[in-house]
Amino acid sequence: MKLISFIERKDNRKSYGLFTDRGVVDIGQYLAKDYADLKAILAFGMTSILKEFESYPADYQSNEVTYLPVIELPNKIFGVGMNYQEKRLEFNESNSAPTLFIRFPDSQTGHEDIILKPAQSNELDYEGELAIVIGKAGKNIARQEAMSHVAGYSCYMDGSVRDWQHSWFTAGKNWPRTGAFGPWLVTADEITDPHNLTIETYLNGCKVQSDRTSSMIHQIPNLIEYISTFSALSPGDVILTGSPGGVGKKRIPPLFLKEGDTIEVCIERIGTLRNTVQLASV
Amino acid sequence: MKLISFIERKDNRKSYGLFTDRGVVDIGQYLAKDYADLKAILAFGMTSILKEFESYPADYQSNEVTYLPVIELPNKIFGVGMNYQEKRLEFNESNSAPTLFIRFPDSQTGHEDIILKPAQSNELDYEGELAIVIGKAGKNIARQEAMSHVAGYSCYMDGSVRDWQHSWFTAGKNWPRTGAFGPWLVTADEITDPHNLTIETYLNGCKVQSDRTSSMIHQIPNLIEYISTFSALSPGDVILTGSPGGVGKKRIPPLFLKEGDTIEVCIERIGTLRNTVQLASV
Repeated sequence: MKLISFIERKDNRKSYGLFTDRGVVDIGQYLAKDYADLKAILAFGMTSILKEFESYPADYQSNEVTYLPVIELPNKIFGVGMNYQEKRLEFNESNSAPTLFIRFPDSQTGHEDIILKPAQSNELDYEGELAIVIGKAGKNIARQEAMSHVAGYSCYMDGSVRDWQHSWFTAGKNWPRTGAFGPWLVTADEITDPHNLTIETYLNGCKVQSDRTSSMIHQIPNLIEYISTFSALSPGDVILTGSPGGVGKKRIPPLFLKEGDTIEVCIERIGTLRNTVQLASV
Repeated sequence: MKLISFIERKDNRKSYGLFTDRGVVDIGQYLAKDYADLKAILAFGMTSILKEFESYPADYQSNEVTYLPVIELPNKIFGVGMNYQEKRLEFNESNSAPTLFIRFPDSQTGHEDIILKPAQSNELDYEGELAIVIGKAGKNIARQEAMSHVAGYSCYMDGSVRDWQHSWFTAGKNWPRTGAFGPWLVTADEITDPHNLTIETYLNGCKVQSDRTSSMIHQIPNLIEYISTFSALSPGDVILTGSPGGVGKKRIPPLFLKEGDTIEVCIERIGTLRNTVQLASV
């Protein structure tokens, strides 16, 4: 299943549902009084509830909805920096433990929505990533059990404001609407091996990043084990698994995002997340 | 005024109120249906509401309540690393912009409650800090306006798990119940100059850190200006302004917290935050 969070444009109403070949099935119209959002559905144990809606007729075509970040308000968003070998070489990274930073939910944006280039920066960079969404709460999760805690996968454009990143990532990773998350969550049952997917980023149609998720240094079970040792995970939490090499900062000359650019993150079997860049007002 | 969040022990009920010389005035019993917690009160504009309770009789003595973190669930907790010169020298820090990390709310604990030493670490370190609590929302706040966004001040023991801190702070700063926050929020009107206070940390009664808040490198208006440039601040958000030198990691031999230790953070005109250390079960 492909799960989405969206605003139904006609009535400007937030909802969630299924993305199907026929269009969008609005599940929120039936369940929102008990489960306010997709995060609440995940907390309950979604598959048993949502499967029955797969045969429902579509309520909208995809151009009748505005996509929200797949999980609009995760309790925790962990980013893993420097998790592909090529990127580590570009940044001369030697840290052997996972390099973790945190994004706040208000730094996110949805599929086909705008990414905001800060007025205070000329170094907004792209990073295409595989996002994991947690479905089952846990603490001290052993790597052998970790995959049973994953609800599904999505694409993420972890927009990075390099000239504010300094030697620390917090200020570079939390500008409003720099983290695009979508289009949908593909449920884990449909992705047999999340470490065997092509991951590519396109800037205005030109391929700028290309790798396979098999190149991750810290793989998903290890990340879940490591993180849950010090911080409990709960449904709707997000782990961004890092970006391949090829980012704009390390190109000669550098290649940063500018107003009007289209940036796409394409992950095999998951889909394509597409955003355009707009300049923020100060 | 001194504002506290607490559990009233007799009925095991969460509430908030004033700490006075006579005891605790339970304001939550009157206002909780409209303002669930202190964060909600701050969002409304507390001083106009709370002043009238100053003359009320006390409902409990202080030993009848369990202190909660002053703000139990801030939307954002920013930590400023390496913000005192002596600490920068200890850690050989050269970053000129503020070094920011993020704590999640579930890493907090209250005054006189336990601090948990992780079973997976032998390097739980103390850091006594001045915490700022935001009272008024803002984005792009100019430093000249910044102090009007501060609701008040508290003490914070920013417990740091050094052997998980690696070169990145996220994993070292987010273990459960390692961040003690209290005892209370002293409202900003009572602290004429937050940069002219003694700040001291005592381990089992021995002074281990001692400095003045005038030694901060990035002072409060600058921190608020810097942070609010990239991330909006809202009532109840917390900024930890960094610790003086003298932490355990850089002593010869190192001095880490162990089960049964008492750690106190004393800040002039604010108060003393006191916690004991307990070993976590795995």
